[in-house]
Amino acid sequence: MDLLQLCTDAKSASRLAAKLGTNEKNEALLALAKNLAAASSDIIAANKVDVEEAVANGMSQALLDRLTLTEARIEGMAEGVTQVASLPDPIGEVLSMWTRPNGLKIGQQRVPLGVIGIIYESRPNVTVDSFALTFKSGNAVILRGGSDCIHSNLALVKVIKETLRQCGIEENIISILEDTDRKYVNELIRMDDYLDVIIPRGGAGLIRNVSQNASVPVIRTGTGNCHIYVDKDADLTKAVPIILNAKLQRLGVCNAAESLVIHKDVAEEALKAIIPALQAEGCEVRGDALVQEICANIVPATEEDYGTEYLAKIISVKVVDSIDQAIAHINKFSTGHSESIISENYTAVQQFLNEIDSAAVYANASTRFTDGFEFGFGAEIGISTQKLHARGPMGLNALTTTKYIIYGNGQVRP
Amino acid sequence: MDLLQLCTDAKSASRLAAKLGTNEKNEALLALAKNLAAASSDIIAANKVDVEEAVANGMSQALLDRLTLTEARIEGMAEGVTQVASLPDPIGEVLSMWTRPNGLKIGQQRVPLGVIGIIYESRPNVTVDSFALTFKSGNAVILRGGSDCIHSNLALVKVIKETLRQCGIEENIISILEDTDRKYVNELIRMDDYLDVIIPRGGAGLIRNVSQNASVPVIRTGTGNCHIYVDKDADLTKAVPIILNAKLQRLGVCNAAESLVIHKDVAEEALKAIIPALQAEGCEVRGDALVQEICANIVPATEEDYGTEYLAKIISVKVVDSIDQAIAHINKFSTGHSESIISENYTAVQQFLNEIDSAAVYANASTRFTDGFEFGFGAEIGISTQKLHARGPMGLNALTTTKYIIYGNGQVRP
Repeated sequence: MDLLQLCTDAKSASRLAAKLGTNEKNEALLALAKNLAAASSDIIAANKVDVEEAVANGMSQALLDRLTLTEARIEGMAEGVTQVASLPDPIGEVLSMWTRPNGLKIGQQRVPLGVIGIIYESRPNVTVDSFALTFKSGNAVILRGGSDCIHSNLALVKVIKETLRQCGIEENIISILEDTDRKYVNELIRMDDYLDVIIPRGGAGLIRNVSQNASVPVIRTGTGNCHIYVDKDADLTKAVPIILNAKLQRLGVCNAAESLVIHKDVAEEALKAIIPALQAEGCEVRGDALVQEICANIVPATEEDYGTEYLAKIISVKVVDSIDQAIAHINKFSTGHSESIISENYTAVQQFLNEIDSAAVYANASTRFTDGFEFGFGAEIGISTQKLHARGPMGLNALTTTKYIIYGNGQVRP
Repeated sequence: MDLLQLCTDAKSASRLAAKLGTNEKNEALLALAKNLAAASSDIIAANKVDVEEAVANGMSQALLDRLTLTEARIEGMAEGVTQVASLPDPIGEVLSMWTRPNGLKIGQQRVPLGVIGIIYESRPNVTVDSFALTFKSGNAVILRGGSDCIHSNLALVKVIKETLRQCGIEENIISILEDTDRKYVNELIRMDDYLDVIIPRGGAGLIRNVSQNASVPVIRTGTGNCHIYVDKDADLTKAVPIILNAKLQRLGVCNAAESLVIHKDVAEEALKAIIPALQAEGCEVRGDALVQEICANIVPATEEDYGTEYLAKIISVKVVDSIDQAIAHINKFSTGHSESIISENYTAVQQFLNEIDSAAVYANASTRFTDGFEFGFGAEIGISTQKLHARGPMGLNALTTTKYIIYGNGQVRP
């Protein structure tokens, strides 16, 4: 595999991707949705090879489930592509335009990023989803999926490339690293002359490796050690269902709550309402001394617990003396993803919303809403927990940049 | 010097910086302007040590001039600070807010980045300027200036810290690496747990080193190999003054033109009007075969010339067969900074503005306008030639990020 050639081709293709009109892009996406359905038996056959290898390698049932493709799942991918076709095209939007005293008319126009690298793990649906979003936003994409699903990914990319050819569109707008040797990942993330951004979509280890070693700019998507703070003026009839939802509605997701912070003035009443309700659902509770005193069956919490994203039926609990202490604790231990205050106190809510340094800060709602679809973006490429470029759920706009276009009539600088 | 402690203190201070009100920030900036003027003899004495060492080390006259501080230059710094005080505060702006069908009210609010690292070379005015801009936008800043101006920088930071104390504001909002050993730069750019962004302000070597080795996200500011394309429908009465201005009005700046691209249909007339005018100003012209044929005293241009940012009285010239070829040439050789088309043809102008992949794309104006002040931002921290986060001239908004604030009333995710 000639990675340099692949990157060079992707960069050339990105110029063409940027010029595609909205209708052209939407027609290609709708054709892809049809072609995916039509090719489903080929895709499933390729996926079977991956699944058999994974079984032989002793993959866990949960991961096997994510890896396995069915007719229904391919239909789901096609539906996703159709939805992306229906979203507004972000490209070409002029965010603002103004005229300078010298008559220069300056506008800031939304344009594609160029070449986007996406590095992901073992869910083949990311292949189709990543193409749909990067293509709709006028970019070329280089995919590097996990070795576990390489046959599935190659089959999916084949359908995408065939669709592009069929629509008269340059097929190098999408490319995939056919060789999943890790050395190519390390080379890819140093190709800053060719790639404009790398988005790792996967676990904390992958994200850390990429962001520590890349020279290409990286958008870090996120681990979420999300907190819910129960203020002294909390309405417990809101607090209990919100906490149960945020912790238990889905366990393995980054916007699930992992830690509770409780104001001491309400600790006894709040803990007695919340903790047994969590324990009744099989959730292990790790708490500080006061929590252990008030409730039964509490595992003592360590400092490490407060910094842990469990992604499991475990939650840490800490009692604090004040909202200031709650905010300091959360800003110290959180990963900057999503946090929520439960309070009827106007000033407490405003302080929490202002001072918590996270991508999404809620008052009186579950952290589970941090999601591109729930926010109304119609799509999601991931949730950024970094501060540069995009923060929080990323829709199509996060895959764009801007340029200034300037209309003059002979102006020179005095 | 304990760099880890310095970064830890800066991160704590950034929480306080983010909470400062607009009036508090403006009052501190106005106090700083006064204090700089009052301390000018101390600052000049410190600067004298740097200048004497620089003379002893054989620094060039041009660099010595950039290094030397005078009463007038310190007054200039103070004026700059006063201007920043008068700019609107970007923090707290809610860019948009909407209500979801479930009643969640979601707003995207502008907030500070946090801790900004600025690495720069031998102009001490960058010290004050960087503080004013990062402070006004609610951030903490860690400065690392060149060893050439360390005494000047320390004197300036002393005045800034005294001003903050006098205003009752945490002084660790600004810190400077007192030891200019390069090993600390290499450590600083890996402090991704503490710094939110690094902005290198200086030459291409500095920027390359930082962006290749940082784990902290970097905003690359720019080298500019800027092009002017003279279309077949160019009005030469506009082209000649624009080209002279873009090439010669100031030589050592990133928005100066370094290369001309001329449509063959107008080559003879255009070259005869443009080239002698440039040569009359002492500008060396390096051209392809056709340019050599039409004009006298042309140095043959190599491929390397087309990729060179001269920052000197030299310009490269290439004749092309079509606007498509012009765009391909520019997108190949440009650094993505600023390019301009000279044309009266509507379609050619629109094509150029759409297809040139640079931060600022002009029609019929000098590239020298790519500048935060000329764009009307009232300030400039640099000109980004990368695509992530900020592209083109960066004002105060480039030193901010956003977070989502969400007002609920008990919502849980179904």
